[in-house]
Amino acid sequence: MVDIATRVYNHSFKIDPIVRSLIDTDFYKLLMCQSVFRNKPDAQVTFSLINRSKHVPLADLIDEGELREQLDHIRSLTLSRGESTWLRGNTFYGKRQMFRSDFMEWFENMHLPAYHLERVGDQYELTFEGSWPEVMLWEIPALSVLMELRSRAVLRGMGKFELQVLYARAMTRAWEKIARLRTLDGLRLADFGTRRRHSYLWQDWCVQAAMEGLPGSFVGTSNCHIAMKRDIEAIGTNAHELPMVYAALAQGDAELAQAPYDVLADWHEEHDGNLRIILPDTYGTQGFLDNAPDWLAGWTGIRIDSGDPATGAETAINWWKSRGEDPTQKMVIFSDGLDTDKIIELHQQFAGRVRTSFGWGTLLTNDFRDLVPDNALAPFSLVCKAVKANGRATVKLSDNPNKAMGPKDEIARYKRVFGVGEQVGMEVVV
Amino acid sequence: MVDIATRVYNHSFKIDPIVRSLIDTDFYKLLMCQSVFRNKPDAQVTFSLINRSKHVPLADLIDEGELREQLDHIRSLTLSRGESTWLRGNTFYGKRQMFRSDFMEWFENMHLPAYHLERVGDQYELTFEGSWPEVMLWEIPALSVLMELRSRAVLRGMGKFELQVLYARAMTRAWEKIARLRTLDGLRLADFGTRRRHSYLWQDWCVQAAMEGLPGSFVGTSNCHIAMKRDIEAIGTNAHELPMVYAALAQGDAELAQAPYDVLADWHEEHDGNLRIILPDTYGTQGFLDNAPDWLAGWTGIRIDSGDPATGAETAINWWKSRGEDPTQKMVIFSDGLDTDKIIELHQQFAGRVRTSFGWGTLLTNDFRDLVPDNALAPFSLVCKAVKANGRATVKLSDNPNKAMGPKDEIARYKRVFGVGEQVGMEVVV
Repeated sequence: MVDIATRVYNHSFKIDPIVRSLIDTDFYKLLMCQSVFRNKPDAQVTFSLINRSKHVPLADLIDEGELREQLDHIRSLTLSRGESTWLRGNTFYGKRQMFRSDFMEWFENMHLPAYHLERVGDQYELTFEGSWPEVMLWEIPALSVLMELRSRAVLRGMGKFELQVLYARAMTRAWEKIARLRTLDGLRLADFGTRRRHSYLWQDWCVQAAMEGLPGSFVGTSNCHIAMKRDIEAIGTNAHELPMVYAALAQGDAELAQAPYDVLADWHEEHDGNLRIILPDTYGTQGFLDNAPDWLAGWTGIRIDSGDPATGAETAINWWKSRGEDPTQKMVIFSDGLDTDKIIELHQQFAGRVRTSFGWGTLLTNDFRDLVPDNALAPFSLVCKAVKANGRATVKLSDNPNKAMGPKDEIARYKRVFGVGEQVGMEVVV
Repeated sequence: MVDIATRVYNHSFKIDPIVRSLIDTDFYKLLMCQSVFRNKPDAQVTFSLINRSKHVPLADLIDEGELREQLDHIRSLTLSRGESTWLRGNTFYGKRQMFRSDFMEWFENMHLPAYHLERVGDQYELTFEGSWPEVMLWEIPALSVLMELRSRAVLRGMGKFELQVLYARAMTRAWEKIARLRTLDGLRLADFGTRRRHSYLWQDWCVQAAMEGLPGSFVGTSNCHIAMKRDIEAIGTNAHELPMVYAALAQGDAELAQAPYDVLADWHEEHDGNLRIILPDTYGTQGFLDNAPDWLAGWTGIRIDSGDPATGAETAINWWKSRGEDPTQKMVIFSDGLDTDKIIELHQQFAGRVRTSFGWGTLLTNDFRDLVPDNALAPFSLVCKAVKANGRATVKLSDNPNKAMGPKDEIARYKRVFGVGEQVGMEVVV
């Protein structure tokens, strides 16, 4: 039986919206947003799209009108009652009422602020300006929209069965990865792939496949909407934007040197347990840890997001030991450019020495490499970052100089202030 | 929107029927049925299921109650008005009114006759007895039901995503085969896979994939129901059961020697063009052609269904030449155990020498080899054959002694009458 009403209703759509909910975003964005809403509500920031993969001519692939329609649609969204209830009522990491009432009231009434879009050559310049708690919420939906519009552009014109077989191949590949991971004892793995997913539906499929294929090991997803829909845990803590903006807001070198610790001091007040995860690489991991106050060593874990992951984990283990902590009680979260081989290698390498956890991103939710001619669906490195705060440029160094961001002279100043020496460059794949 | 009515309607099903239409069968069955209905309406025959793959314990895999329900459901079917209209109105091979009114009236009122089912060890004994035109129509649905119940038995208990990936793998495989065939110039290919299909829906998928992937080359399907649904040509002519039953009905050796030609004389009266296809191997191809009357050389083509296919085609070409015919105007139809490699090889080998056509069966519609543990979905060799006619055993020799059927002494007699000498045995895969 054809459901006539559904058919007619579907025909009334003006567009097929990619992002349909304000919680189709990463959980840590909401956690950070609450922290910013409390601690720096008036900071004015600029977020900007950066396509590190210049060979992908986004402005040639994606129609500007379609992109505007998608972005405008996101601006029309508000938090639904059910989403609000889920956020207010959920238990995250065993803690109820993660989100305070004042934050929820603000969030329930918020619309995303205006965007500025301009074609420059074969790329788009897409920027968001305004108060930090609002602007920061653009990052993930902006990336999701661009990624999926690019997928749609490539898929357009393919035959019905050609498409079905394309997804059949992608499913087979994802399932084979999951099957390999099934052999690992005590694996802890989450989906971190929202920002660079092939599409919403595909991310949702990957999450469900991981739920079925890795029972006990797959612990949740960073995507709040999918976590809600699939009744699993939303996963995440904090990201580089906090130290980057805090650092840009700092007055003078002394405040700058202190900024990354100020971030975590604010965080420390609000959170405990699995939410106390250090992200140490913004201005160089080694220096950050060497100069860290003792109370940070009491935190639950460290997330490794750049540089050689094994080296990063060893650095963390040595640091905990030097501060009198037992590394086997600590957690290392790997989240940079992971795929099956790397996950297996790291899991085995650190088994018994430290608790490990894996945030599997792009190569879970967007491994369409070599599935269409010219590799036109291969994932690429698109980010949306805070580039200014109160008129001052932000800087990121990270443990991989190829991931560094900011004006040259400021990078030099930050390197000096944070005592960052020679760094080894690594290719940024995704 | 959930279509509530559909959900409720679906819940009212007692079973999920495998065969839902009397024309979910091979086209040649209906062509032969009409011929039998006219020429031998009173012959009493027995058809019997034969599982040549003894290692597949059908009676352990398939619940007897479920099998009976499926067979009973088929007995409840009658030709629908639309199916009748399609059969009466269709143009087959450019000819209208392929089916005569008296046949259609009989067919419209026919129910399939009773069956006899008994478990013997780990196999089922399944036989059908009665008048030839009715009993013969059991062959294809009986096979489809057993094949699909076996698939269902293996698939039961698999997870939702495990299942989806299983079909993703099968789709990828089928599509890769189709993509390889796309490179062949002037290929003519049809689906002959009804009897040993993985399932009805899977056959329907394969047909649609071939339609999209091989435009111009994929000429149709043997399955009438799918041909009607997908608006493509129904393909087929005649099969071994005609000479087998005619031979069993023959009185004495002289009539026996003549029986295969009597079949084709009856056929000759009714059909022309692409329906005049000789199936010469029932009692040995070489002897059949050597002793054939000249009018048979005027027929359109020869179907090769056993023995080495290239040898069979060479035999046919030489025979046409010896009878003064131009082989480049003739057609050779290959239909025995084909898969991509074999199709490519034969197509290239005979290009320009004879027109070729391929009836791709089991390895199109049931290539689930190595997709589940213990290869439990691999296709296997199940047939349903006329074993008796008017109380006398039937015999088939074919060009492969491993495909021979019938009582030992009768096989010896047939070999003597038809002058069949040494034969080379070939493995029967499917």
